[in-house]
Amino acid sequence: MRYELFYWPEIQGRGEYVRLALEEAGASYVDVARRRGGEDRLMAILGSEREKYPPYAPPFLKAGRLMIAQTANILQYLGPRHGLAPKNEQGRLWVHQLQLTIADFVEEVHQTHHPIASALYYEQQRKEAKGYSREFWKRRPQKYLGYFERVLDRSGGPWLLGRRISYTDLSLFQVVEGIRYAFPKAMRRLERTIPGVVALRDAVAERPRIAAYLASPRRIPFNEYGIFRYYKELDA
Amino acid sequence: MRYELFYWPEIQGRGEYVRLALEEAGASYVDVARRRGGEDRLMAILGSEREKYPPYAPPFLKAGRLMIAQTANILQYLGPRHGLAPKNEQGRLWVHQLQLTIADFVEEVHQTHHPIASALYYEQQRKEAKGYSREFWKRRPQKYLGYFERVLDRSGGPWLLGRRISYTDLSLFQVVEGIRYAFPKAMRRLERTIPGVVALRDAVAERPRIAAYLASPRRIPFNEYGIFRYYKELDA
Repeated sequence: MRYELFYWPEIQGRGEYVRLALEEAGASYVDVARRRGGEDRLMAILGSEREKYPPYAPPFLKAGRLMIAQTANILQYLGPRHGLAPKNEQGRLWVHQLQLTIADFVEEVHQTHHPIASALYYEQQRKEAKGYSREFWKRRPQKYLGYFERVLDRSGGPWLLGRRISYTDLSLFQVVEGIRYAFPKAMRRLERTIPGVVALRDAVAERPRIAAYLASPRRIPFNEYGIFRYYKELDA
Repeated sequence: MRYELFYWPEIQGRGEYVRLALEEAGASYVDVARRRGGEDRLMAILGSEREKYPPYAPPFLKAGRLMIAQTANILQYLGPRHGLAPKNEQGRLWVHQLQLTIADFVEEVHQTHHPIASALYYEQQRKEAKGYSREFWKRRPQKYLGYFERVLDRSGGPWLLGRRISYTDLSLFQVVEGIRYAFPKAMRRLERTIPGVVALRDAVAERPRIAAYLASPRRIPFNEYGIFRYYKELDA
């Protein structure tokens, strides 16, 4: 089966967690909106009155006759099919729980540059973004990434679930990459306290399919339109 | 089986979506932290070094030998077991997707009073809360609740999935109740445009088990510690 992924073509954003899973799986997929006419198809589905399972927002995945939206939901569908999640009940619930915790963290990262409204420009909420980012770096990355460090301690590593990689490892890699990009100074300090998470990041980057993906034009570079943005003044 | 729900004892919060599902199901459960010594048990699990599946935060549910955290994850576990979700794959993915969209909306509502940091008091971010709430009411409830109105249109009602109630209907009820409490003036205006959502809210409130729950001391009243808070100055 050839999957169709629908996501905004110019950013990594929330679609990237799905792209990483599809790439690691070696799955056959089309990143629809990056093809000619693809963004129109994406918009047509979002605005459709006939779509039986209308997504609220991208990303969404067409998998044969199935239509699946919400990043974590797409991943929990793909995971057990491609060896990226356990098949037993506790294992599936646990990896999904970790993924939802990553999603919560990513949402907080997004607010570092958009604390007042997504619909406004960064420049319109710069002062508040500084205040948010200052508070954020007092405790949030420490708490979230410290949690994943503890999970790794308990699993014995190298992956969050132990000896087998799962989609949530790929997502944690993406979060580390994103924060390194957006907050290079603050992240350098924090990384000293989370060696397991850093080692996991390195191990993901070395996976042959992930390495090939990251070096390919399929990987959209970080930029100032996505979730992880670099504004020097926010990186204390 | 008797479920054990672990959540903060003084607020509805994110635990309320689970409580509503357990109540509608007529399931046997203990709201652990509301019992003597229960909050200590909750804290012990959160801080435990031995817990194999450590939750990042409440709510979490013990279901026999299973440990499940993250509200939407708990609901997707409970749903098919108690007639509150379809059992087929597309149905399960769809109802979970709706639930995750509700979770996104609830997170945005929380920021109306805490746009800068959860760890600070409201009074320390009052000005920013006013700015956030003003922007929020220009478009966000309209977009989210308008989306659920369209889903109801397409399902034919009375429930989001059509003729059978699901856990996400109970959650949508809770969101309407919460916004009515927090933003009575703004919500009154908006409700004219979402008659289907309002009818769904009424239908949930009339379910015998839900009505009994709402009238019981098990239902914690809305207050100024939870996610939905009433600050007159934010309700434009």
